[in-house]
Amino acid sequence: VSIITLTTDFGSGNPEAGLLRGVIWSITPYARIVDLSHDIPPFTVVEGALLLERCTPYFPDGTIHIAVVDPGVGCARRMLAARLGTQYFVGPDNGLLTLMLQKNPADADIVCLDRPEYWLKQVNPVFHGRDIFAPAAAHLAHGVPLSALGSPISDPMMLSLPRPQRTAQGWRGEIIQIDSFGNLAANVTHEQILELGLAEVFIAGQHIPNIVHTFGDRQPGDLTAMIDGSGHLSICVVNGSAQTRLNCRPGEPVEVKKI
Amino acid sequence: VSIITLTTDFGSGNPEAGLLRGVIWSITPYARIVDLSHDIPPFTVVEGALLLERCTPYFPDGTIHIAVVDPGVGCARRMLAARLGTQYFVGPDNGLLTLMLQKNPADADIVCLDRPEYWLKQVNPVFHGRDIFAPAAAHLAHGVPLSALGSPISDPMMLSLPRPQRTAQGWRGEIIQIDSFGNLAANVTHEQILELGLAEVFIAGQHIPNIVHTFGDRQPGDLTAMIDGSGHLSICVVNGSAQTRLNCRPGEPVEVKKI
Amino acid sequence: VSIITLTTDFGSGNPEAGLLRGVIWSITPYARIVDLSHDIPPFTVVEGALLLERCTPYFPDGTIHIAVVDPGVGCARRMLAARLGTQYFVGPDNGLLTLMLQKNPADADIVCLDRPEYWLKQVNPVFHGRDIFAPAAAHLAHGVPLSALGSPISDPMMLSLPRPQRTAQGWRGEIIQIDSFGNLAANVTHEQILELGLAEVFIAGQHIPNIVHTFGDRQPGDLTAMIDGSGHLSICVVNGSAQTRLNCRPGEPVEVKKI
Repeated sequence: VSIITLTTDFGSGNPEAGLLRGVIWSITPYARIVDLSHDIPPFTVVEGALLLERCTPYFPDGTIHIAVVDPGVGCARRMLAARLGTQYFVGPDNGLLTLMLQKNPADADIVCLDRPEYWLKQVNPVFHGRDIFAPAAAHLAHGVPLSALGSPISDPMMLSLPRPQRTAQGWRGEIIQIDSFGNLAANVTHEQILELGLAEVFIAGQHIPNIVHTFGDRQPGDLTAMIDGSGHLSICVVNGSAQTRLNCRPGEPVEVKKI
Repeated sequence: VSIITLTTDFGSGNPEAGLLRGVIWSITPYARIVDLSHDIPPFTVVEGALLLERCTPYFPDGTIHIAVVDPGVGCARRMLAARLGTQYFVGPDNGLLTLMLQKNPADADIVCLDRPEYWLKQVNPVFHGRDIFAPAAAHLAHGVPLSALGSPISDPMMLSLPRPQRTAQGWRGEIIQIDSFGNLAANVTHEQILELGLAEVFIAGQHIPNIVHTFGDRQPGDLTAMIDGSGHLSICVVNGSAQTRLNCRPGEPVEVKKI
Repeated sequence: VSIITLTTDFGSGNPEAGLLRGVIWSITPYARIVDLSHDIPPFTVVEGALLLERCTPYFPDGTIHIAVVDPGVGCARRMLAARLGTQYFVGPDNGLLTLMLQKNPADADIVCLDRPEYWLKQVNPVFHGRDIFAPAAAHLAHGVPLSALGSPISDPMMLSLPRPQRTAQGWRGEIIQIDSFGNLAANVTHEQILELGLAEVFIAGQHIPNIVHTFGDRQPGDLTAMIDGSGHLSICVVNGSAQTRLNCRPGEPVEVKKI
């Protein structure tokens, strides 16, 4: 009994995620289907890739991740299904699987979806999520081997994501995501900060003198730096919003310096 | 193992859809339940009817669709359960099933829900979704025949929906739905446009010189006319929002003319 | 096959609820999981407690309710699992289960989650929902006895919630919740109003001369008082929004007087 996850920019209030369930359950009636997010900002492939990186470790072997953030729908971009280690990915070839693939570079099989017998009979050129990706994933969940879904390829599109720069004293990175609490996630990782030992943070003209273990180490209202649930540096305000306090957006520079 | 879909105006962030699941699973523990939308604009029956028309073809035989957009809750309006072809509908008698019924006019059984033994014991007059429609649908999913749920009727309420007018050169219709990408769906269908052969579109003072197959046929930012995933004429901006570009709302007139 | 409900302040569009499903299904693959709400206002424990009170009666015996509205995450607050009558609760010890516990004061077992073998191996100090509460609930659903999850306690934190005051002529209460239709729920219950016989309502300078059975007893646009689906006094506008009409917020005083 497979698990299928959905990551899209369809918008939460819309019926598209329900339609994908109808298509999937028509093919494999017992699949368990879970929404990761339907509120990826429209056409923002990098947000989809970051979300998949963050979420996939918490799903069991065999999980199939459908990701449809697809500004190229109806254009000539390829469509993919992939095995990446013990999990699967189905979606457009636009870089969505970049970070998952970087984790499993040597242990992956990728095919280009070119076998219409595993799609819906009628394919609307602007809704490949419903008409191609959902049925392909459902057939995979139902036991069709990956190799039957299409021809092997070895050159999936990869995103060039902003990476932090090593400086004399530490790292220069940037904010890559902001959650609903207003916490700011930077592209500097726990491992990179551990290299430095004790460190201080500079952002938006503010100085945060150390990186604490958890909210409980500071007082409500304090601007705080810590490691978030996905292993990234997070700038937050205890019981408040760092986004509001600092008036920041993704791309805002962040400096981490060894003390 | 039945599938039950939910279409309501409860609002996505609210617990009502969860409550319906509690009620349904208390009666039929293995039902698979899927949200189509809980963000139908409050009391907008026509939006619910359009959504059901669009979604039901993607669900397998035997699916039960609960629709609760119910401005008359607590008033004297009847409540229905219906078989329409191979699927089922449960909801108020206010026109929600108009479009489903128009597809299956000769192959339908409709009953008025008048058997309280298939409702919750306590019925709150303002929450029939939880107390009547959900349990009725759950009993249907669990094997109770439609005819046991109530007395047959033959005069369900039907909506009078705006239909496009045939003109000398083509069709005069209107925008009926706007999705989260800002694409504008008109009440002119693919079949009606095929009658014309090549066609051009006029909307909000703009002229769109042809109807293309897909986004890929135009450039990002282009105002474009095409056929959407539900078979309707769609006015869109490639990788943008036609709603923002044209400042349109449902009801905006659209002209389609044979070239 | 257990049902697990989720009530959080994670925000609907975010992937956290999906992550909890991944964790739960990794431990107990057949659990049915239902979202009650992920839109509890951040850190608002009282809203979570009210929502659980309202929803739990509609779920079958054995249901496990995970509630994560947790301003103290990462601080020294305890974490709980509890049996309350025939259902279960898992969440922080901050008062979320106050109202459920008041319903079952003599029939409850409560443990403090202090057995890390039932948590994820890596626990992030700011995401106990994913790393502690979800796995603890999943083990409970999978058959681990409550007593194995931690040490018994008898002093869970209880909220002091606003209760209506008895006046010479009736009750003085306040608005405690506003739903997406703009209906205002007060902390005065059906039972308290029945004590009075016929009653009138005063709110925000307006006088409502009686409490009706249902919307159908008044005209569209009428300001109306009735009993809502959770058994509380509700101030509403038929087919409209009382919130907009009266410009009210939670805390607004409400007077109910015997006529």
